[in-house]
Amino acid sequence: MKIVVDAMGGDNGSKIVVDALVEFKKENPSVDIVVVGDENELSSLKDICEVVPSQSQVPMDAKALDVMRMKDSSMLIALNKTVEEDADAVVTCGSTGGFLSASTLMLKLIPGVKRAAFVAPFPTAIKGKKVVILDVGANNENTSDELYQFGYMGRAYCQAVYGIEEPNVFLLNNGTEEGKGSPAVKEAYTLFKKSEFPGFMGNIEARTVLNGLADVVVCDGFSGNTLLKGTEGTASLIMNEFKKILRKNWWTKIGYIHIRKGVKELRETLDYKSVGGAMLLGINKVAVKAHGNSDAHTFLCALDVAKKLAENDVVTKIKEGLGVHEPEQ
Amino acid sequence: MKIVVDAMGGDNGSKIVVDALVEFKKENPSVDIVVVGDENELSSLKDICEVVPSQSQVPMDAKALDVMRMKDSSMLIALNKTVEEDADAVVTCGSTGGFLSASTLMLKLIPGVKRAAFVAPFPTAIKGKKVVILDVGANNENTSDELYQFGYMGRAYCQAVYGIEEPNVFLLNNGTEEGKGSPAVKEAYTLFKKSEFPGFMGNIEARTVLNGLADVVVCDGFSGNTLLKGTEGTASLIMNEFKKILRKNWWTKIGYIHIRKGVKELRETLDYKSVGGAMLLGINKVAVKAHGNSDAHTFLCALDVAKKLAENDVVTKIKEGLGVHEPEQ
Repeated sequence: MKIVVDAMGGDNGSKIVVDALVEFKKENPSVDIVVVGDENELSSLKDICEVVPSQSQVPMDAKALDVMRMKDSSMLIALNKTVEEDADAVVTCGSTGGFLSASTLMLKLIPGVKRAAFVAPFPTAIKGKKVVILDVGANNENTSDELYQFGYMGRAYCQAVYGIEEPNVFLLNNGTEEGKGSPAVKEAYTLFKKSEFPGFMGNIEARTVLNGLADVVVCDGFSGNTLLKGTEGTASLIMNEFKKILRKNWWTKIGYIHIRKGVKELRETLDYKSVGGAMLLGINKVAVKAHGNSDAHTFLCALDVAKKLAENDVVTKIKEGLGVHEPEQ
Repeated sequence: MKIVVDAMGGDNGSKIVVDALVEFKKENPSVDIVVVGDENELSSLKDICEVVPSQSQVPMDAKALDVMRMKDSSMLIALNKTVEEDADAVVTCGSTGGFLSASTLMLKLIPGVKRAAFVAPFPTAIKGKKVVILDVGANNENTSDELYQFGYMGRAYCQAVYGIEEPNVFLLNNGTEEGKGSPAVKEAYTLFKKSEFPGFMGNIEARTVLNGLADVVVCDGFSGNTLLKGTEGTASLIMNEFKKILRKNWWTKIGYIHIRKGVKELRETLDYKSVGGAMLLGINKVAVKAHGNSDAHTFLCALDVAKKLAENDVVTKIKEGLGVHEPEQ
């Protein structure tokens, strides 16, 4: 197995990537790593990885059209290497928009796939259980066909990463009854239903997405992005309020001593960093976008996710799903 | 001032409406109340309100097209009374879908308004401060013109209910930069910007909606519904996890004793019940939909919101806003 890593462009510099790779190689000595970035900053990796030098990096706010011109950037060199060496996966913590457009153009969409989607695992009320939501922001809007395809991508992700053989799949909607929703969502419901999509359970409301019953939730990129960021915002609001409550006076500080272990665990459950990043599904390679503000631990999680997805051949699983069950119209 | 109340159709029966009205009349003896519902159940109100009998109620899952046929239902009689007696406001805790279609048809949209919107106030990180979000579910999708009009409706609501003279107004988007978002959202951004909409501050992401900086956030009904329910779901997940942490053992229970006052306050802040309900903006009357599972306190809050909106003439404020600043195209 070969994983290509773009070491530049994250908020915390290449140091966190170096640390993560050292750890990753210790645990996975047989995985070949090609790492692209500033030669000096990556010099300590020379004995364990192939280091490819780059001169620049794609800025966080890069416009889609500009990215392809940045040929000497670490991200484009990394994507080129992925193609040239037929690597299994590519991982970056650089610009999301840049990675989306460059990897779609350079690694290409899986034949038949209309749009790639970012998939993110969310914490749920059931300990250790995640719910996989897609698209969380690769697209600004989606057609019913695209939503239908997301179903297969989410299913393949769930099988590959969590080993759930028959994941259940829901459609995000503003009500649970059939016939609810925007025209695209209504049509998607019909596609799922008519094709007897494996594990399709109907509509789900945002209120119950995190209750642990759903394995996969399909939605358009705008709603998914709203859900992802709304969840993060609400969690952060409440955790901050709790901090205030616990620090109020001597008595509450004593209270905190008794519950701090539980609070720490909850904070970890809610911490999006522990899931490593969002994967771009629907293209011909495993492509993982680690969070821009990743630390070494987060980046290591992103590398682990990439390895798991490559090992379990998520790309082939998506191809099989889409090939066997093309939407009937 | 006259408020018409549909006493039937809530999850907790008419008793909570009776209790709320007794309390409301104590505080507001000069407001005339017309209450519609089962004559026996409402008999104790006869001395303080005009009681209008009804034979049936609109079921919670009523289809839009069926509602208008339910002429002897408490909701339709209440809406009829609102028109006939030119009342200032109507309040119900019955079916949301039913109320949406019946009140739009019977009370009519304000001339020039393309779509009504449900507006809901959300808690924020700043104590006591709410952010007004619309539409949270009256529509399945919205055009840029409709989003633009929601700006004026939200502004008028904020002025009427919170007395904020110059509320700031944001557009919900998947990024803060200009040029982000779906075609409708991009166009709406241009309409707000070009018309120099009062207080327009640009895009806001769902992550920061609750941080207390925004007064009004405009979004389409599907995204708004996702945000509303996603926030509720996340808050309920975290509060339940805390409950588990606090009940774990003797020590954590002792911890709880010291922080319970703070936790209770936080729970109240997050409790959607305390805001009374969602108001349907864009029609010719004040129309408040209290939560289906309202208790007497919630319903009283809904009555208070209706009174405040009528007192401050929110309908005229919306008319003025839309009249002075029609979107330029």
